[in-house]
Amino acid sequence: MENIEKVRSQFPITKNRVFLNHAAQSPLPKPVADAMHKYIDESSSFATYAKEYEDLGKPFFAKLINAETGEIAVVENTSVGMNIAANVLHPKPGSKIVTTDLEYPSVVYPFLRKSLGVEVEYVKNVKGKVLLENVERVVDDKTAAVAISHVEYANGFRHDMRAISEIAHEHGAYVIVDAIQSTGAVSVDVKRDNIDFLTASCYKWLLSPPGAGYLYVREELIQKFEPPFTGWASVKQEIFNTTDFWDIWKLELSETATRFEVGSPSYISLVGAREALKLLLSVGISNIERRILGLTDHLIDSIKDMNLDLQTPEEKACRSGIVNFRVENPRQVAEELGRKGIIVSARSNGIRVSPHFYNTEEEIDALTDEIRKRQK
Amino acid sequence: MENIEKVRSQFPITKNRVFLNHAAQSPLPKPVADAMHKYIDESSSFATYAKEYEDLGKPFFAKLINAETGEIAVVENTSVGMNIAANVLHPKPGSKIVTTDLEYPSVVYPFLRKSLGVEVEYVKNVKGKVLLENVERVVDDKTAAVAISHVEYANGFRHDMRAISEIAHEHGAYVIVDAIQSTGAVSVDVKRDNIDFLTASCYKWLLSPPGAGYLYVREELIQKFEPPFTGWASVKQEIFNTTDFWDIWKLELSETATRFEVGSPSYISLVGAREALKLLLSVGISNIERRILGLTDHLIDSIKDMNLDLQTPEEKACRSGIVNFRVENPRQVAEELGRKGIIVSARSNGIRVSPHFYNTEEEIDALTDEIRKRQK
Repeated sequence: MENIEKVRSQFPITKNRVFLNHAAQSPLPKPVADAMHKYIDESSSFATYAKEYEDLGKPFFAKLINAETGEIAVVENTSVGMNIAANVLHPKPGSKIVTTDLEYPSVVYPFLRKSLGVEVEYVKNVKGKVLLENVERVVDDKTAAVAISHVEYANGFRHDMRAISEIAHEHGAYVIVDAIQSTGAVSVDVKRDNIDFLTASCYKWLLSPPGAGYLYVREELIQKFEPPFTGWASVKQEIFNTTDFWDIWKLELSETATRFEVGSPSYISLVGAREALKLLLSVGISNIERRILGLTDHLIDSIKDMNLDLQTPEEKACRSGIVNFRVENPRQVAEELGRKGIIVSARSNGIRVSPHFYNTEEEIDALTDEIRKRQK
Repeated sequence: MENIEKVRSQFPITKNRVFLNHAAQSPLPKPVADAMHKYIDESSSFATYAKEYEDLGKPFFAKLINAETGEIAVVENTSVGMNIAANVLHPKPGSKIVTTDLEYPSVVYPFLRKSLGVEVEYVKNVKGKVLLENVERVVDDKTAAVAISHVEYANGFRHDMRAISEIAHEHGAYVIVDAIQSTGAVSVDVKRDNIDFLTASCYKWLLSPPGAGYLYVREELIQKFEPPFTGWASVKQEIFNTTDFWDIWKLELSETATRFEVGSPSYISLVGAREALKLLLSVGISNIERRILGLTDHLIDSIKDMNLDLQTPEEKACRSGIVNFRVENPRQVAEELGRKGIIVSARSNGIRVSPHFYNTEEEIDALTDEIRKRQK
């Protein structure tokens, strides 16, 4: 990355911390914080908002995942996006949902509800990898959907979404993707990968505050589904334009993905997300991905050098921004590192490290130096 | 209100505008904006958040409506709260939902979904009032719930919630209340009024940014219902404490109202809401209600004096912070007033005026002077 110092000047956290925890919650870049401060000042002193906020960042998120703006709804967070998808399917009795044993709870919990009445089957990982042959073995004609994280939260394993979609679609199953650990870090392309539903909060790799998230629904599916939650935001907005009294006698759902929106979102979060998405797009996701994989290569070299147990599969094609290695008492280690200004997480009996494009090899070394000291 | 100038100094909007539009979206008071600015700075420079934010404002909202903290869930907005209530009931086929013809869409739309399979019956208003005798006539043993706004958005009619609950409960129906136009302006008491579900966004009378809202579920009902949306935030948080890998094999729902929470909310909005709730509680809702009803008395006197058609029922017991009077071309009138710095809304063929406790009679006069000029 040329001019890394200029990049880092946009991230105030770099002055205070070695922050390697983007898989948890990211610190705000300066342009994001600036836009949010401005929004607060406007919200205190005026009664109207800038026209530019009205798109809610949707065109930028659409661009990032290769979708159309009309296929994007704003959602409070990934969990809400997953639940919307889970609740529109109305699977037949006896249906099943396929997921993996590496999953984040919000991918699985929507389908564990008794009232949904489906079975959940978990494809077992093999040394941190979910093998396509095992997905193929589990997905069958009873499968209503495959619900999966593009990148798994604990060890960073990246699925081949195109291959998984092919398997699912062969059996008439939908593909529902939690992309919170991939979007903003590695390439996401809903058209290339034939995704039906994809959702992501923006507070991790998308460098935004909590409260901003997006849900992609493939265009051909939008009008097929009645949203589980409906409110003033779900309907065609023209109906409000005559007497300034809402038509409450019928439900005329929007023909775009806004039908899955319900009420007022956290505008300030979306104002922040909009700036963050612009920033990431200006750097370019392929540049970001290359940079992140370079940093994690460097980290993996050190982990191997220290003879620590790498819990992240090593092949680049199934890697992401997340690297996990085993240590004793990971929670205590993470806390001690935190007191030294190095921020990582304890996950799955190990330390999870998740650098973004503005981090440096020196920062990775600061972490591994501390780990090395502990070994002595 | 003693020391009104000191109060007004906390509201920067008073320097720029005559803001009489709290039934739409309120400008932020200074302590709310300050807390939000601080949160942004912390989110940019540090990786940890202040302990004090952790309650998400729930104890303050609970106090405001006379509930317990464990009965409160955070929700993105009122519409989400209404949809949660609508989706837990699983009404028998042939059931009906009773509402009124004055309602806001987000109160009715959740029940108009085909997949819910209920009939919606609207109690007709009589000159802007919904009469209890008409509610009594419509609610019957087939009624699964009465879904209603405590205060109606277009004309400000305030229902006698205690009387409505009595009618509903006699027939075994639940009472689901949208309190967005009452909480923060007039007295709300879920125990006194025997409410089953009550929800409110905070961006109107609760003087907060969008993205913060609360849902009250009566304690006895919480564990009876499986939430329609479930995520990491719905379950007992102890399960995360052993290996730092989530238990994804079962759904152990929280025993408090947090089971209705799903994922990460807009923390910054809740940080703002927390300050706003503290501010409102420190003034006292009975003081606020008295002040608001005094200001609207003054406004109603002027409206009658101008021989304009008052669309808000006049009796104090069924009034709120909202007053509506009929004019020709209300939307154009509202826009023209806006250009003169007087902010109101066009609603239901009239002008909707909604002052809060920090407004003054002089500001009401500034509005009515403009209306008078137009009559000449």
